[in-house]
Amino acid sequence: MATRIGKTTICFSVKPSVIGYGSVVGKKEFDGPLSHEFDTHDSNSRFGEKSFEKAESRMQKIAVETALRKCSKSENDIDVIFAGDLLNQCVGSSFGLRGMNIPFAGIYGACSTMTLGLILAALAVDSGAAKLSAAVTSSHFCSAERQYRYPLEYGSVRPQSSQWTVTGAGATILSQSEGLPYIDKAAFGKIVDLGVKDANNMGAAMAPSAASTLLSFLNDTHTSPDDYDAIITGDLGKVGSDLLYILTENRGIRIREKHFDCGLMIFNRNTQDVHSGGSGCGCSATVLNSYVFHMFEKGKYKNILFMSTGALLSPTSTMQGESIPGITHLVNIRI
Amino acid sequence: MATRIGKTTICFSVKPSVIGYGSVVGKKEFDGPLSHEFDTHDSNSRFGEKSFEKAESRMQKIAVETALRKCSKSENDIDVIFAGDLLNQCVGSSFGLRGMNIPFAGIYGACSTMTLGLILAALAVDSGAAKLSAAVTSSHFCSAERQYRYPLEYGSVRPQSSQWTVTGAGATILSQSEGLPYIDKAAFGKIVDLGVKDANNMGAAMAPSAASTLLSFLNDTHTSPDDYDAIITGDLGKVGSDLLYILTENRGIRIREKHFDCGLMIFNRNTQDVHSGGSGCGCSATVLNSYVFHMFEKGKYKNILFMSTGALLSPTSTMQGESIPGITHLVNIRI
Repeated sequence: MATRIGKTTICFSVKPSVIGYGSVVGKKEFDGPLSHEFDTHDSNSRFGEKSFEKAESRMQKIAVETALRKCSKSENDIDVIFAGDLLNQCVGSSFGLRGMNIPFAGIYGACSTMTLGLILAALAVDSGAAKLSAAVTSSHFCSAERQYRYPLEYGSVRPQSSQWTVTGAGATILSQSEGLPYIDKAAFGKIVDLGVKDANNMGAAMAPSAASTLLSFLNDTHTSPDDYDAIITGDLGKVGSDLLYILTENRGIRIREKHFDCGLMIFNRNTQDVHSGGSGCGCSATVLNSYVFHMFEKGKYKNILFMSTGALLSPTSTMQGESIPGITHLVNIRI
Repeated sequence: MATRIGKTTICFSVKPSVIGYGSVVGKKEFDGPLSHEFDTHDSNSRFGEKSFEKAESRMQKIAVETALRKCSKSENDIDVIFAGDLLNQCVGSSFGLRGMNIPFAGIYGACSTMTLGLILAALAVDSGAAKLSAAVTSSHFCSAERQYRYPLEYGSVRPQSSQWTVTGAGATILSQSEGLPYIDKAAFGKIVDLGVKDANNMGAAMAPSAASTLLSFLNDTHTSPDDYDAIITGDLGKVGSDLLYILTENRGIRIREKHFDCGLMIFNRNTQDVHSGGSGCGCSATVLNSYVFHMFEKGKYKNILFMSTGALLSPTSTMQGESIPGITHLVNIRI
């Protein structure tokens, strides 16, 4: 049984634990600082497929298969998988997983999808609805670019506040198991929209929701940044991370020393021309399902907050003059 | 605590009950056979908004507000809302609910979204993660038509197997309450793809998944269609319903006498020119949150199966020559 503390925080009681995880990335991510952390990569980011969309689906399948292999489970053992991505109608997930014999719950949280999936997978295990559950998500630079922005061939110049969509997928498998990192607490985010309209500045659009979710969680749990080994956001990038510091420090909370952003970890901004950093569902998914869980295995992390950040816009909403709603979901992972 | 029976069926223990529900529709739906069942309609389907997408968002907001009003609750009482729709990046939900102070979990199940949301909302209440939870979804003929098919102005001729996207939204609020209809059991669907490629024949693409989910549930629970007052599918339409009969009768299960399809209930096929019937997330959402719950109130339903059906395609996947994966989620609602 889960319980609630404060206004938005959920406490799990059965320790939904990470028994398996897998990550798969493209060439640029493999060339970045976390290169040796990932399970699989493809040197041309096509994964043997004829279209970028099919390549993205293939990555999701590989991520799930990798996670299953690591915990010696088969797809028939998974009672429900929560999956989503950035593509219109989430076809990265539905086509990636359609051949698998796993009950499928589609989710959409833009780049917050990994944490949204983790919360629901934890809820399924905690409630008893699933013995084993899974969460997976993906993004692909090439499928995202042509869907959200311009055809790749157009070669548009990108402003410095823009971010580079990560080509990658990450999958996590949860079960009740002692001694492994587990989801102790969680919080669904609220939609926060402070009126940012620049679709080339997602960091600014998402930072207010990250501040809102984090401050609310710290308040509910009567904890401070000092209580955690790390506070990891999904893809705020440089612009969004700086804004998060301002927004939290205005409320008397200093997180700079504990904060890491997956979008700043996965690429080298000085040499990889990604401007404000990485982004996309695959950004927090691949960093979580490699570096972060490795840090738990090495004993360097014992208690962290992991918060994927999402911008809930569409090209149509932008064309209709709308601002960009942000959302940030949170999980407290500990050992 | 939930328990599992058989391969895919979840049994809830705390009776997540329907304490509030709301429905809102456009003109064509109000002119149909269920006219008097709906809470609200707009005579030009624009709901005072400048675009069809904004009208769809507005419908979601109205549906949630209506459901809240009926159970004398405010948005601050809801611990989590599960919301999704057919629009790219689910902007119907994110923009419709961004002004509400409710923790938000985005979902995507195409036209199966209402039942997917109900299962997750029930799980949240059952686990203790939420005292009150909600599920909402929507579709709009005009926003769907121009996104999935052709600009309205083009006036394309539709084949007889095609369906008419319902303009409408429905919302349900769940809590633990004795004496009201409650979600007793549920099953997440598996993705089923038998290779149908005709995007103008969604009924054929979805029927195999409906048969799969239904047969699996009846098998898990050792029940037969005779045990239920009704077996209601989302939007198989005439073509898909006939296929469902064939697929289930091939396995020795006859459902004709108990089966209703929301897509066939909401429009009059003889006079409203909708060809195979209604479709869209709003189809099963509006029929559930009006007619179906009214039937429980009148005492005419005591135990039903409700199964929203979804086709997990996108225009891009169709253009790339892909077939159409179908999914059907199921809830067993009883009093």
